[in-house]
Amino acid sequence: MKILECVPNFSEGKDEKKVEGIVAEVRKISGVKLLDYFSDPDHNRTMVTFIGEPGAVKQAALQSSLKALEIIDMRTHRGEHPRIGAVDVVPFVPIGGLAMEEAVRTAHQFGREFGERGEVPVYFYGEAATDPRRRKLADVRKGEFEGLKEKLSMPGWEPDAGVRIFNPRAGATVVGARRPLIAFNVNLGTQNLDLAKQVAKKIRESSGGIPSVQALGLELKEKGMVQVSMNLVDYHRASIPKVVEFIRAEIAGTGVEIVETELVGLLPREALEEVVRAYLKMPEFNSDQVIETHLLSA
Amino acid sequence: MKILECVPNFSEGKDEKKVEGIVAEVRKISGVKLLDYFSDPDHNRTMVTFIGEPGAVKQAALQSSLKALEIIDMRTHRGEHPRIGAVDVVPFVPIGGLAMEEAVRTAHQFGREFGERGEVPVYFYGEAATDPRRRKLADVRKGEFEGLKEKLSMPGWEPDAGVRIFNPRAGATVVGARRPLIAFNVNLGTQNLDLAKQVAKKIRESSGGIPSVQALGLELKEKGMVQVSMNLVDYHRASIPKVVEFIRAEIAGTGVEIVETELVGLLPREALEEVVRAYLKMPEFNSDQVIETHLLSA
Repeated sequence: MKILECVPNFSEGKDEKKVEGIVAEVRKISGVKLLDYFSDPDHNRTMVTFIGEPGAVKQAALQSSLKALEIIDMRTHRGEHPRIGAVDVVPFVPIGGLAMEEAVRTAHQFGREFGERGEVPVYFYGEAATDPRRRKLADVRKGEFEGLKEKLSMPGWEPDAGVRIFNPRAGATVVGARRPLIAFNVNLGTQNLDLAKQVAKKIRESSGGIPSVQALGLELKEKGMVQVSMNLVDYHRASIPKVVEFIRAEIAGTGVEIVETELVGLLPREALEEVVRAYLKMPEFNSDQVIETHLLSA
Repeated sequence: MKILECVPNFSEGKDEKKVEGIVAEVRKISGVKLLDYFSDPDHNRTMVTFIGEPGAVKQAALQSSLKALEIIDMRTHRGEHPRIGAVDVVPFVPIGGLAMEEAVRTAHQFGREFGERGEVPVYFYGEAATDPRRRKLADVRKGEFEGLKEKLSMPGWEPDAGVRIFNPRAGATVVGARRPLIAFNVNLGTQNLDLAKQVAKKIRESSGGIPSVQALGLELKEKGMVQVSMNLVDYHRASIPKVVEFIRAEIAGTGVEIVETELVGLLPREALEEVVRAYLKMPEFNSDQVIETHLLSA
């Protein structure tokens, strides 16, 4: 089952009516399923998640993004989260067996259509980057909306699509393709925050841990526990069992145990299959062995 | 997602053309998905698996069973497996959130329609039994086809539906409702068959082990291992993690380890969720957290 996920981030997270106006455009497209949307008023930002066939998903991304341009004016936008435009970032994520190339192709098509119709400068990032210096979202967004006008006139910052003119209402849009990301937390039965921070440091890629793991040690006051809060940026390199067993080994001998784990949001089926394969030693397991999977085409 | 599964067993497993004729009737019904069919020539028997909405599943069971009556003549049937009729047993299995009562209702409707139209005596078994002495399939089938004529004239063996007359071509049909059954094997890294037999004896319900587990110790010559081969008749009482950890504890100290596990056929999504919940200590996990689940209604 090959599907495309899109997770656009819009620079409006306070006015519920405006947010609903944007989300309504996704709901209108048949063949697209809206999975989730979440507004953070401090960030003044909304993240929308939807899936479907690539063509329908591109259409939903386009209609909602054009609506966002009507609604949002960056000249008056304030928020905690870094942002460069009204339609800040539009990531396309291949799910199941869909090839990354197809997500990249959709990102490029979307970027060109949206850039032209919205008269917005568009940069391609992630797997859709055409310039290696634009692979990281943070690098592309550096300087944010406030620095965009100058950036557009700098050598090496010609947009990949859309217009090169500074659009003061819309800013710029960063469009890309990336692997699905799993937000996964492991809660430890202790109030020792230092332990969670130590484990997070050990496991995160940036300090030499497991590739593609981002991790923080946090306090869970209400629960009286501490948490290793993670993003598994590429679950092919950092599977859930690999991460859990790394942490289990790390805390062995401290007398502290893993009390529970949490998923924030969704995970791809493949990542779930990996859990079954690892813990049951059932290397051949796949979701076709689950009765309900077959109802898809019933 | 509430669906009904039906797993009828027909007394023909040698003539491929005849089997295809029966299976074709299932394929004709829209809204029903044929998952599997398997013929055993020694048993001279075919098991067909299909799923869908209760009404459509009943229809597929009815059409394929009526076709089987045209094709099969019990007067010339020979096979290793116990059987009482051409359409030997028709179990309905509730999947996902479907209530057992709905499977029972469908079994009763099917039994009455099929019994009348096919002029066949029908007995209800399992959860669909109306007489507690008919709960076990083996008890109902006792005496087999060869003893049926006499059985029909015995007190206490009036059919639950259909005709009371002996039908020499068709025999009788046992119709019921039951929970999904999981065929699950655990392979041990030893050639010590006695160990597998000991473990099987410890775990099986009939010798005081885990309720609803049937188990055998077998040799896997090609693999150089032994196997604890199981049916988990009710996975609510015998979950996969419970069974695996029971076996792990049982072989602890022997130096033997679990090398791999196997699923034979399909398992319900709920049983898979239980694996994730247990091994990740994620009690709230459910399949709605899997992206692909949402494609069902996309």
